[in-house]
Amino acid sequence: MVPHLTTALTGPLRDLECTFLNAQPVIEHWFRTKWLEHTPPFYASVDLRNSGFKLAPVDTNLFPGGFNNLNPDFLPLCVLAMQSAVEKICPEARGVLLIPENHTRNQFYLQNVAQLVTIIKQAGMRVRVGSLLPEITQATEIALPNGGSLTLEPLVRIGNRLTVEGFDPCVVLLNNDLSAGVPPILQNLEQSVFPPLSAGWYARRKSSHFAAYDRVANEFAALLGIDPWLINPYHAVCHQINFQERVGEECLAAQVDGVLQKMRAKYAEYGVKHDPFIIAKADAGTYGMGIMTVKDASEITGLNRRQRNKMAVIKEGLQVHDVLVQEGVYTFEHINDAVAEPVVYMIDRYVVGGFYRVHTGRGVDENLNAPGMSFEPLAFETCCTLPNPACNPDDMPNRFYAYGVVARLALLAASLELEQTE
Amino acid sequence: MVPHLTTALTGPLRDLECTFLNAQPVIEHWFRTKWLEHTPPFYASVDLRNSGFKLAPVDTNLFPGGFNNLNPDFLPLCVLAMQSAVEKICPEARGVLLIPENHTRNQFYLQNVAQLVTIIKQAGMRVRVGSLLPEITQATEIALPNGGSLTLEPLVRIGNRLTVEGFDPCVVLLNNDLSAGVPPILQNLEQSVFPPLSAGWYARRKSSHFAAYDRVANEFAALLGIDPWLINPYHAVCHQINFQERVGEECLAAQVDGVLQKMRAKYAEYGVKHDPFIIAKADAGTYGMGIMTVKDASEITGLNRRQRNKMAVIKEGLQVHDVLVQEGVYTFEHINDAVAEPVVYMIDRYVVGGFYRVHTGRGVDENLNAPGMSFEPLAFETCCTLPNPACNPDDMPNRFYAYGVVARLALLAASLELEQTE
Repeated sequence: MVPHLTTALTGPLRDLECTFLNAQPVIEHWFRTKWLEHTPPFYASVDLRNSGFKLAPVDTNLFPGGFNNLNPDFLPLCVLAMQSAVEKICPEARGVLLIPENHTRNQFYLQNVAQLVTIIKQAGMRVRVGSLLPEITQATEIALPNGGSLTLEPLVRIGNRLTVEGFDPCVVLLNNDLSAGVPPILQNLEQSVFPPLSAGWYARRKSSHFAAYDRVANEFAALLGIDPWLINPYHAVCHQINFQERVGEECLAAQVDGVLQKMRAKYAEYGVKHDPFIIAKADAGTYGMGIMTVKDASEITGLNRRQRNKMAVIKEGLQVHDVLVQEGVYTFEHINDAVAEPVVYMIDRYVVGGFYRVHTGRGVDENLNAPGMSFEPLAFETCCTLPNPACNPDDMPNRFYAYGVVARLALLAASLELEQTE
Repeated sequence: MVPHLTTALTGPLRDLECTFLNAQPVIEHWFRTKWLEHTPPFYASVDLRNSGFKLAPVDTNLFPGGFNNLNPDFLPLCVLAMQSAVEKICPEARGVLLIPENHTRNQFYLQNVAQLVTIIKQAGMRVRVGSLLPEITQATEIALPNGGSLTLEPLVRIGNRLTVEGFDPCVVLLNNDLSAGVPPILQNLEQSVFPPLSAGWYARRKSSHFAAYDRVANEFAALLGIDPWLINPYHAVCHQINFQERVGEECLAAQVDGVLQKMRAKYAEYGVKHDPFIIAKADAGTYGMGIMTVKDASEITGLNRRQRNKMAVIKEGLQVHDVLVQEGVYTFEHINDAVAEPVVYMIDRYVVGGFYRVHTGRGVDENLNAPGMSFEPLAFETCCTLPNPACNPDDMPNRFYAYGVVARLALLAASLELEQTE
């Protein structure tokens, strides 16, 4: 078993967790009715921040890596959720072609792909892994640190069907976030593709996600009679930014100032003594690139060349044009002296596990998903679906229920977001 | 963790398990397509017998007790399966009224009811327990040996709605097998009732179940290219029996002889050295009453008064008129010197766990579910959905996958059986 985490819980979150626990039947019924109207993403992971006074999603990944970091005890949950997903969206399917990211040297990521293969296999599907990498010209077995292995195969397009040698799948499952656009080999396929190509980061915008999350959080907060701010970070967006040319700095500074002012009012209302801070990040893209912490608008106009260069480019060397200005949420969960950020995993509408990103070298007001940063994954000790009314609200099973609720709100927001792109 | 079981596996079952393991994608695809055409029972448990040369269901319970005997590690699986079941059949439901059996002095059974309450609650539903017992005239809390408690409440019928005080549920969930018929208070309800009233033992016949199982097993065996006998016990049925009046003994003796002859041919074909035996049991009803082991047709005509009285009456004092003659399947699983019989639990279409009925005082050719018999439940160590191709076929995860497959075949047979009663 993994160790218990220590947290610094103060009043409001405890209240929030109590509210969630008491309202569990109302919450679950609400989710059920929502899933009658909206189709959940095939899978997702949601980064949460737990500040003690607030519990909120800060990023929703529709091509989740990190399945290898989940508690192995919950593999059966993943399998059952995968079976349920397959039954709903492609019951006739027998074969799945999984398309991973291209970083074959990242052993952690490859273990994630191997774990997805295991889950899909255990759910009773045939599965092969087709690589977009041009250097994969034949089936290539890669040994993994955990003793397993993963075989990457070259993709073969036959008419409008995507195959690997001797395997014509019914379903193409993307674990590649399409940051650089949709490669021609994936365009106009006659097979079903999950998640849809339009969920790729070439098209997706964090601001659209959080606009959808605003609607979800407002409705959910009204249902429970709580302040939506307790589960929703303020945000704003600036377009046509060019960091290197210093274009758009005024817009960015103004938006940062606007969000900080709203935050100060809320901090005053709830008696929060900390300094509000902002996370400014590229509106498209992921991987913790193009992100900075700002505590005052003046920092935006005072960026030096190195800082501007760092903000200007994200994964695949893409230029940043649109920037999301997001209320920073302190993380006050920590293990010994390291800060910890929970990440919740879902397949279809089901929470299947999670882990903590634990950083020793980062502050409570910094992004914990950064390139080159090593983090220690710490699997959740219990799953997120079993609140225990006999425990205190901040006991593990109840903490995790609250995580699962907020993560599913972000999942629902992703559904709304994807509906608009279809 | 629970201890490993020892088994005495011989050739054919190992072959059977290998066949199942290799065919997993074919099997799961087949089940998915079947569940598109047929609705699984709300929940079920299936008693299996594993003779080493044969793995077969011998009883399918549509009002399963014993959820308290499952490995607590698999509670999340039960919850997820319950959520999936609710989403499919009654997504709008908020409240469930659970109707248990009337034996309030059976602490094991009450713990099963309490466990069902937990599963339903964790799945996000409100749940109350309404008792058919006339002596429950007010809410009555019963302390349970595990430290928990269960509150039974009197049922209140308001028009065509079944309620308990202050609680008008959307769904009535039966954990009462209706052996004595449908009580008037349950008739013509406007709420949804699961399982349907027609699944009660007042109407259900084991012979109908096994006739449906014949069809399922034959189709499944053809799919896999195996002899259906390896997963299906022979059976026959006699009607208009009256044990006390010695009416129908000739029919019974003839059917016993017929099944024994077919078994002898199969035993010769597979080189099985054991004596074939028959289980004769009441075609309606459960609880291990009205059951006997027979090795020769002459035993039927030679029953003494005590034996005839024992066979004549089942639960609720009902007379036995119809008798199922079922091929006996040896159980060669044992723990130390005790024989063990696996029982697999399902919610909706999902296998959620199982346990072994372990008897020290019974033989390998006897029924292990008998009234007054104490048995030790031994929760399965792993769940039934995670075959591990890296293990030997008779390693635990693979053994349990085979159990889950055969149990689901019986579940599918129950679906066909229920369709015919609607």
